[in-house]
Amino acid sequence: MKTALLLDEYVDLVDAEMKSLLANVDSPVRDMITYHLGWTDEQGGQIEGFGGKRLRSTLCLLACKATGGDIEEALPAAAAIELVHNFSLIQDDIQDDDRERRHRPTVWSIWGKQQALNAITAMHVLSSVALARLGKNGTPIQKQQRAQSLLNNTVLEMVKGQYSDIHFETLLDVGVHKYLDMIDGKTAALISCSLEIGALLGTEDKSSIEAMAKFGRYLGFAFQIKDDLLGIWGVVAETGKPNASDILKKKKTLPVVFAFEAAEGIGKEQLVEIYAKDIIDYVEIDTVLRILGEIGAKDFTQKMVQKYIDRAVEQLAKITLPTRSKTELQDVTSFLVDREY
Amino acid sequence: MKTALLLDEYVDLVDAEMKSLLANVDSPVRDMITYHLGWTDEQGGQIEGFGGKRLRSTLCLLACKATGGDIEEALPAAAAIELVHNFSLIQDDIQDDDRERRHRPTVWSIWGKQQALNAITAMHVLSSVALARLGKNGTPIQKQQRAQSLLNNTVLEMVKGQYSDIHFETLLDVGVHKYLDMIDGKTAALISCSLEIGALLGTEDKSSIEAMAKFGRYLGFAFQIKDDLLGIWGVVAETGKPNASDILKKKKTLPVVFAFEAAEGIGKEQLVEIYAKDIIDYVEIDTVLRILGEIGAKDFTQKMVQKYIDRAVEQLAKITLPTRSKTELQDVTSFLVDREY
Repeated sequence: MKTALLLDEYVDLVDAEMKSLLANVDSPVRDMITYHLGWTDEQGGQIEGFGGKRLRSTLCLLACKATGGDIEEALPAAAAIELVHNFSLIQDDIQDDDRERRHRPTVWSIWGKQQALNAITAMHVLSSVALARLGKNGTPIQKQQRAQSLLNNTVLEMVKGQYSDIHFETLLDVGVHKYLDMIDGKTAALISCSLEIGALLGTEDKSSIEAMAKFGRYLGFAFQIKDDLLGIWGVVAETGKPNASDILKKKKTLPVVFAFEAAEGIGKEQLVEIYAKDIIDYVEIDTVLRILGEIGAKDFTQKMVQKYIDRAVEQLAKITLPTRSKTELQDVTSFLVDREY
Repeated sequence: MKTALLLDEYVDLVDAEMKSLLANVDSPVRDMITYHLGWTDEQGGQIEGFGGKRLRSTLCLLACKATGGDIEEALPAAAAIELVHNFSLIQDDIQDDDRERRHRPTVWSIWGKQQALNAITAMHVLSSVALARLGKNGTPIQKQQRAQSLLNNTVLEMVKGQYSDIHFETLLDVGVHKYLDMIDGKTAALISCSLEIGALLGTEDKSSIEAMAKFGRYLGFAFQIKDDLLGIWGVVAETGKPNASDILKKKKTLPVVFAFEAAEGIGKEQLVEIYAKDIIDYVEIDTVLRILGEIGAKDFTQKMVQKYIDRAVEQLAKITLPTRSKTELQDVTSFLVDREY
């Protein structure tokens, strides 16, 4: 846990489960999925190191173990969650017209948007195929159904959040309240679901399951807001300058949403003028960075990350956990706050 | 059954089930779905008459009743199937860049492709939410799981067929064999699944369930090939001329695929030349129609429809059914062959 983000052995187990699920999908649709999951290149050759963090599936397994369960039993659920997360990324890239993810061309930029939609549908189905496997691992049928129901509700929350995120592109003044509501669906819902399903498979204790779900909810808020912070002030290694990529894309992330609420006078006028344009240029990026600096948007955003981390830790304290599990969950939490990428 | 395609009371029951499922989806995503399903207009106002045939859900209910089941019990399954079919239509419209369906603007052409993707994901989730309801209707858990598994496999077949359909746009010489393989996934799989799940919920008799699935498979082939026939020789009411719309779109439907195999000499050269162009003009449509005429493509296609209908009826004959049910299923079959739209 000290060098890498997550537990390597968990990542390997989840990937093995997803690979076995992919036996249900024929090439060439499978090629798009294995490419996106970081196992193959454009030509189908084996590669390594581009798969993403597997954060959500790891959290699911950690929650299962922490509450006394067997991670082997939870593997299909962890795979289902990872598949949902990853189809949402492919969809996100299509919706945002993004050509690059994890330093590689996105699926649609190689196979085209038409075909990428087929990969999304296949991965969505596989998440259900995965959950159907739970029964074979000895999970009681009621828990399997509950897991499917939780994941279904979560995807509906994600859809709602994603709708708002896209809709916000057309608005200038979103407001912090609506922004938080949007990331609740877009990001926090699935992280919460990961921990809730993990705990559901680990224990019968409802209050532990509930606390784990809330821990995940707050962790999700902190994760997304930290992402927002890095999307503006994350340092580009080559230049040492803030990357400001979210400003260039005119994303309504928390610092900008806050700025629209907090800025006054000329600063506010400049913001409105810049964000009403079709394309933001580099001079205007500097103007936005200056305005954000004047109103203390970075400090506000950092404090919001900390606020949600504190709330998350509070929830974790409610559950009696083995020391090692508690440390592992706290390590993930710290990582999410401290990461610089 | 004589005037309308399908049983009105079945359509009403399935629509009521889908409406109740849609309580799980918040507006504005719900607005896109109710629009597509034909219940509302662009502004959310109530309308009627644009919902489509509900063919697949009706077949599911007919199969359930025919094999001795209670259609009330099968309603969630019928709704799940209809939701899958309809999300695939929204996706198809995006993939084909089609601006019109059922004489109305398509969902994406109103809400944009970005947001239409959210409607697809929500409908896909709702199909799983629907199947989870089966248990509450008294369906044994094993049957519910079997139904989910059948539908999951079917969606994977659809994905494969859809992939091929799009891929064929880039090929000249597809071949009848590959074409049939493509429509197996694209169309026949879900029609087969509708009848199989209906029978699964109606009876314990495996051979009846299997025969019903095969009946659906052949019916699906006949349905798609009839569609291909109408896409070229369907008569436009205003002009009395063949609509030839699939030629204009350069679709690799059966008559054209057959023509690429059967045409020789100058006819074949002209076909290759015309289909290699980016856009086909009206003079070229006449050339294609003439070549199709010379090689007897219409006759070939009609015979293929009849061949699959005969095979379908053969399967139906294997099952002992109440006379009324047999008549209803035969009526749907006849309708599919005889329809002129």
